[in-house]
Amino acid sequence: MAKLLTGKRVPDKITNELKIEVKDLKDKEIFPKLSILRVGSNPSDLAYERGSLKRMKKCGINTEVLEFSEDINQKDFLKKLEEVNKDKEVHGILIFRPLPKQLNEEEIKYFISPEKDVDCLSTINIGKVTEGDKTGFPPATSAAVIEMLKYYDISLEGKNAVVLGRSLVVGKPLSMLLLGENATTTICHSRTRNLKEISKNADILVTAVGKAKMVNKNYVSKNSIVLDVGINVDNDGKLCGDVNFEECKDICSMITPVPRGVGSVTTSVLAKHVIKATKLLKNIEL
Amino acid sequence: MAKLLTGKRVPDKITNELKIEVKDLKDKEIFPKLSILRVGSNPSDLAYERGSLKRMKKCGINTEVLEFSEDINQKDFLKKLEEVNKDKEVHGILIFRPLPKQLNEEEIKYFISPEKDVDCLSTINIGKVTEGDKTGFPPATSAAVIEMLKYYDISLEGKNAVVLGRSLVVGKPLSMLLLGENATTTICHSRTRNLKEISKNADILVTAVGKAKMVNKNYVSKNSIVLDVGINVDNDGKLCGDVNFEECKDICSMITPVPRGVGSVTTSVLAKHVIKATKLLKNIEL
Repeated sequence: MAKLLTGKRVPDKITNELKIEVKDLKDKEIFPKLSILRVGSNPSDLAYERGSLKRMKKCGINTEVLEFSEDINQKDFLKKLEEVNKDKEVHGILIFRPLPKQLNEEEIKYFISPEKDVDCLSTINIGKVTEGDKTGFPPATSAAVIEMLKYYDISLEGKNAVVLGRSLVVGKPLSMLLLGENATTTICHSRTRNLKEISKNADILVTAVGKAKMVNKNYVSKNSIVLDVGINVDNDGKLCGDVNFEECKDICSMITPVPRGVGSVTTSVLAKHVIKATKLLKNIEL
Repeated sequence: MAKLLTGKRVPDKITNELKIEVKDLKDKEIFPKLSILRVGSNPSDLAYERGSLKRMKKCGINTEVLEFSEDINQKDFLKKLEEVNKDKEVHGILIFRPLPKQLNEEEIKYFISPEKDVDCLSTINIGKVTEGDKTGFPPATSAAVIEMLKYYDISLEGKNAVVLGRSLVVGKPLSMLLLGENATTTICHSRTRNLKEISKNADILVTAVGKAKMVNKNYVSKNSIVLDVGINVDNDGKLCGDVNFEECKDICSMITPVPRGVGSVTTSVLAKHVIKATKLLKNIEL
């Protein structure tokens, strides 16, 4: 059986580190605050919101939730966003996506203050992540993969990292983060030929394709370290990842479960980003 | 002998296409114009400037060169940049880099109008390139590689593309452009292990490392299509690429020479970007 890389202890460690930073900030009369903008009440948004509220509280970060009706128009949404952009008490902004059709995400992503954009909606932040500029905010999920690897002391230096999926939330920014850790990085996608062979040769395989149990025993070897970012529902209605865990767990070297894997780390990365945003806004060294 | 992919005819083709677009713009009383900002008189800047002036002229694009003394200060430079940012007659801005030490490139890259930033200095543009947003401007050299491949009808769909080098001018943006063409993309760098093996397995190998003749016969196979972005000087003082052309030319399938390869295409890509910027600024469909 592969070593199980659970997400359980990673958030605890990050939380403990952040608590100290929050205390230091509060000693300076700075009270880190996240503002969540939610349109409608999608169950998965609500679940993530609950998780985030709990995590922020544990870290000592204030959170406000601004809830909008499903049919809010662009002008009203931008007005609210401008308020939080300008609010000196707010240091981080999280907007749940996808937004309903009447809202223009293209305009919103150029409107959100990049300094408060803790989940990489802004083009400035995806640009900074590509540049390797540490003042940028990668999407929380992509950064969660790096946190997992660091927690388990898995060196990326010179390793072959293969990412399945080229989304803006995981694949592309994660490939830039992996490069920043000196991994040789390959990005695969639906058009990739020899996907199994390329995956099998990876030292680190990260799956972010959104297809339940697609990655089976033919994609891994005994050296594989597999991080499963997918969150899907299988034929029995149960939560599962992109990886067929049962098939792969006895072959590869290390593997994350779903649930209780990479996904568990996301809200603590979000908290970390809120603290980073607070410090940058207050000109405090990171 | 491999098929020689020379850059010679690519600029001619692009120029002919652009001439038609320029004529259409001039019929609308729009006169595309590039402004080049050059600090000091570095010989390689001057050479590229001459090439650019010639190319723009061929395409019917106006160009102005703003030359500044080597010791210009940040405030004066930004003042000039603000003038061209605001100048409604100017559609593209090219700033030669690296800039002298007293100038703060970090500030300048956030100051240049992203809409006129035709060579990807701005973080917004590197962000757009990562997003796959076609209104962005990739660095001319990275886009020149794609132009070469398209000119020679080399499909990227599902191919294994390997890029040697992770710079912001070639490696990183090029990897995003290759992904946009549905290639499976691997980025290698100085810390990569098995560099020869990874390179050898590539369908498309792009070298952008800046090391004279580093890529020798051990990096290529009979299937390799090799695009050499390097411009170096060899031990005899002659221009050469990153690829040992003599060693590789009889092994691989296709290869670009240096000089007269990818580098020859750069100024015509720049011209293409000026026309694109002009159209976007004037709300004309691309």
